[in-house]
Amino acid sequence: MEKKIAVLNGDGIGPEVTAQSIKVLNAVAQQYGHIFHYKEALVGADAIDKTGTALPSETIDICLDSDAVLFGAVGHPKYDSDPSAKVRPEQALFGLRQALGLFANIRPVITYSGLQHLSPFKASHLEGVDIVIFRELTGGIYFGEKHTSDDGNKASDECVYTRPEIERIAHLAFKLAQGRKKKVTLLDKSNVLETSRLWRKVVQDIAAQYPDVTAEYMYVDNAAVQVILNPKQFDVILTENMFGDIISDEASVLNGSMGMLPSASVGNGTALFEPIHGTFPKAAGKDIANPIGSILSAALMLEYFGLKEEAQAIRDAIDWTLQHNFVTKDIDPMNFYFTSTIGDLVSEYV
Amino acid sequence: MEKKIAVLNGDGIGPEVTAQSIKVLNAVAQQYGHIFHYKEALVGADAIDKTGTALPSETIDICLDSDAVLFGAVGHPKYDSDPSAKVRPEQALFGLRQALGLFANIRPVITYSGLQHLSPFKASHLEGVDIVIFRELTGGIYFGEKHTSDDGNKASDECVYTRPEIERIAHLAFKLAQGRKKKVTLLDKSNVLETSRLWRKVVQDIAAQYPDVTAEYMYVDNAAVQVILNPKQFDVILTENMFGDIISDEASVLNGSMGMLPSASVGNGTALFEPIHGTFPKAAGKDIANPIGSILSAALMLEYFGLKEEAQAIRDAIDWTLQHNFVTKDIDPMNFYFTSTIGDLVSEYV
Ligand SMILES: CC(C)[C@H](C(=O)O)[C@@H](O)C(=O)O
Ligand SMILES: CC(C)[C@H](C(=O)O)[C@@H](O)C(=O)O
Repeated sequence: MEKKIAVLNGDGIGPEVTAQSIKVLNAVAQQYGHIFHYKEALVGADAIDKTGTALPSETIDICLDSDAVLFGAVGHPKYDSDPSAKVRPEQALFGLRQALGLFANIRPVITYSGLQHLSPFKASHLEGVDIVIFRELTGGIYFGEKHTSDDGNKASDECVYTRPEIERIAHLAFKLAQGRKKKVTLLDKSNVLETSRLWRKVVQDIAAQYPDVTAEYMYVDNAAVQVILNPKQFDVILTENMFGDIISDEASVLNGSMGMLPSASVGNGTALFEPIHGTFPKAAGKDIANPIGSILSAALMLEYFGLKEEAQAIRDAIDWTLQHNFVTKDIDPMNFYFTSTIGDLVSEYV
Repeated sequence: MEKKIAVLNGDGIGPEVTAQSIKVLNAVAQQYGHIFHYKEALVGADAIDKTGTALPSETIDICLDSDAVLFGAVGHPKYDSDPSAKVRPEQALFGLRQALGLFANIRPVITYSGLQHLSPFKASHLEGVDIVIFRELTGGIYFGEKHTSDDGNKASDECVYTRPEIERIAHLAFKLAQGRKKKVTLLDKSNVLETSRLWRKVVQDIAAQYPDVTAEYMYVDNAAVQVILNPKQFDVILTENMFGDIISDEASVLNGSMGMLPSASVGNGTALFEPIHGTFPKAAGKDIANPIGSILSAALMLEYFGLKEEAQAIRDAIDWTLQHNFVTKDIDPMNFYFTSTIGDLVSEYV
């Protein structure tokens, strides 16, 4: 198989962790006889510094011309203090989501027994947690009309959804559930919001087309409780953009480390793969960041290419490193390995 | 002191738990020489069954004519299945919030060492957690314009905020923080929403008037992580309606039991006090529900009346029952006391 991969390193620890994923992808290519072509492009604060914009049009073109995008992280402390500034690194995320039509963000949340010392939860609480969260990514209050009055004393944001926007991501969620524990839980606030009532109605319609999958409906405030109080009840979670932003981050705490979790954002054309962690500025350039979130994102990319065996080889390699305590400083501050060493070990094992 | 208290029992376990609070209030009245006049009014499914509406105008009148409202819970399984039905018990909540102008919902979140066996968290994680959450309650996406297209395939909800709406609740939060650990954390999504940018700007302005209080700003997705990963960092949390709905329920998991937590909703006139738990239909009428959330709500009411010593007497009584394992079935299913017994014990101790 031959594939074109756009590489968007971004800021902070982005370049370091992405470099490990490329090492691992190269090991997969060699082992299984694939050819991956990489093309780097600027994004985030790095792109602002070099071109004046967080998402240069050249970057969009490179992504559109690729089969998949491997994304690091964006953001820089020097832009953090003013969330209303005209040019900001995170604008690249919105821009990419829109330009590539990435309507579904998919986040698997699993737990590793080796990480339980890091977790605020009792060990017994975490065994067997295995959730996949589908968050709608190009609609809702993120992209609706926004206004601020001339005197600056009144502001508004509109949340809008249409049936087709809900249908396409609902189909993805129900299809995935068919190959898992056959349950989809929609999170909404249909006792308050019209958009939530639309979500519930459309998901009820779609659910009828998947009689082998159980559909459940839960208010988002209750879900914020249930995700931590009784996480094993969930299989696939489906929700709109803003609720998904909050609940998927919350659920990541179950894992014990933000550094270990991958994500995929898919649309109609190319797809984007990125760790859920941020730029972690304090660790940048020190070869101490955890590359597992990025490497697992590369594994999701291979699965997206249809390379299931290859993806599993990466997961096995990661399980092996964890079992042998080959971990980065965030997991074991006393006895740790470097970012690049983890990348080497996973590559060799593959 | 002489006060008029409207009693809105509502549905499910509402009447039982509220009855215990009244017992305790009567004990306080006797002990400290106050006079409390109670007036019952219909609300919720109970009101729908008897009058056809969840919030009869007579109920609003009784509340407006009272110094405070003691509220049980509303909701009934027979209305649960259809969140778009014309008449629903929860409408009483919105109606009361609007009619009484209850713009700030205040929820203290503390932990009890006796409850740690119920908590998904490690014991060490919970010691010393002491947070008060201020949730804006009469604005935002709850009360903005809502539309559904004629064909039912497009829906929208508008989130609107004005400077005065933010200022009045911000003042309450900063004032409370002055008597606590002197920190207010605003939760917003100011990297995405205009309304959040307005919140941040206004809170920065208000913060300048409280130089002894530290103001912090956190994105709500990160807050969903921090509240459970590092809850001790928070003192007073301030946020808008929808974020507050989600984050305050999430934070309640720290306590270990939804049955133990009170809330106050304040406005310009009368204020409303209610446990955060729901109607718990399975327990209704069995004298097994936990009345502590309601009794602590009564304590918040006394504080609101300026009766600090009396409120503290109730808290001491509750601590005493917990220390002696006088607890309801939700806390200890093997060795439990009845709802009414807990009410008696707290009253006697007071
Ligand atoms: C940076 C921010 C705008 C973004 C979002 O809210 O979508 C981030 O939190 C995420 O989840 O990717
Ligand atoms: C019942 C519901 C409409 C209500 C809300 O969202 O405000 C409830 O969740 C609450 O927090 O009081």
